[in-house]
Amino acid sequence: MDKTFETGKKLVELCKAGKHLEAIKTLYAPNIVSIEAMGSPQMPQRIEGITAVREKAEWWEKSHEIHGGGVEGPWPHGDRFVVRFKYDVTAKTGPMAGKRMNLDEAALYTVKDGKVVQEEFFYHMG
Amino acid sequence: MDKTFETGKKLVELCKAGKHLEAIKTLYAPNIVSIEAMGSPQMPQRIEGITAVREKAEWWEKSHEIHGGGVEGPWPHGDRFVVRFKYDVTAKTGPMAGKRMNLDEAALYTVKDGKVVQEEFFYHMG
Repeated sequence: MDKTFETGKKLVELCKAGKHLEAIKTLYAPNIVSIEAMGSPQMPQRIEGITAVREKAEWWEKSHEIHGGGVEGPWPHGDRFVVRFKYDVTAKTGPMAGKRMNLDEAALYTVKDGKVVQEEFFYHMG
Repeated sequence: MDKTFETGKKLVELCKAGKHLEAIKTLYAPNIVSIEAMGSPQMPQRIEGITAVREKAEWWEKSHEIHGGGVEGPWPHGDRFVVRFKYDVTAKTGPMAGKRMNLDEAALYTVKDGKVVQEEFFYHMG
């Protein structure tokens, strides 16, 4: 339980500082599974492995201009914790290119031996 | 997916209006399972069945004076959704009696056939 909360606090701290790639590098397990609420041609619903997850984060950072945001949590429960993300962004590429959007989502993380082994993103589109 | 989001929106609407018991009555399955991050003598970590869940909600309402609060969400993912709750309360009974507290938690709900079959509460105490 404590290890889960510690991992969550570190993740939130890094994300608040805009250091998502650093969070992946230091807190994620090699076999991390990342699951979106919905998939798209640019972003499959389920990806596996720290290389694919890092590439996805790099793609996201490159393809969005971030005007502002907020990170809240973590809220722990056993070996899982929830974090809430808000982003004010403009898409640079894809079907939403040039559009400014408010993204609002919750993420559910599962921790094993102090490393994140699964992340699931919760949001509604449309 | 849509049924999950609809159920989540109804739950948030009722909770925003302070109608938690109405939410349980109209949206919960008879075999609902409710799991806290931590148990206490007043509140077991895991309870099962709509009667026990309703009694727990009634106990909570009776044993806390609610000064204010906020409900955000729902954020859906497949057959689940997340809601975030904040409460400014004073405990009326138990070891925290007379103490004013800010409760801040996330809840993860699982939906089957349009009814909530599981609720899990995420928070840190201490």
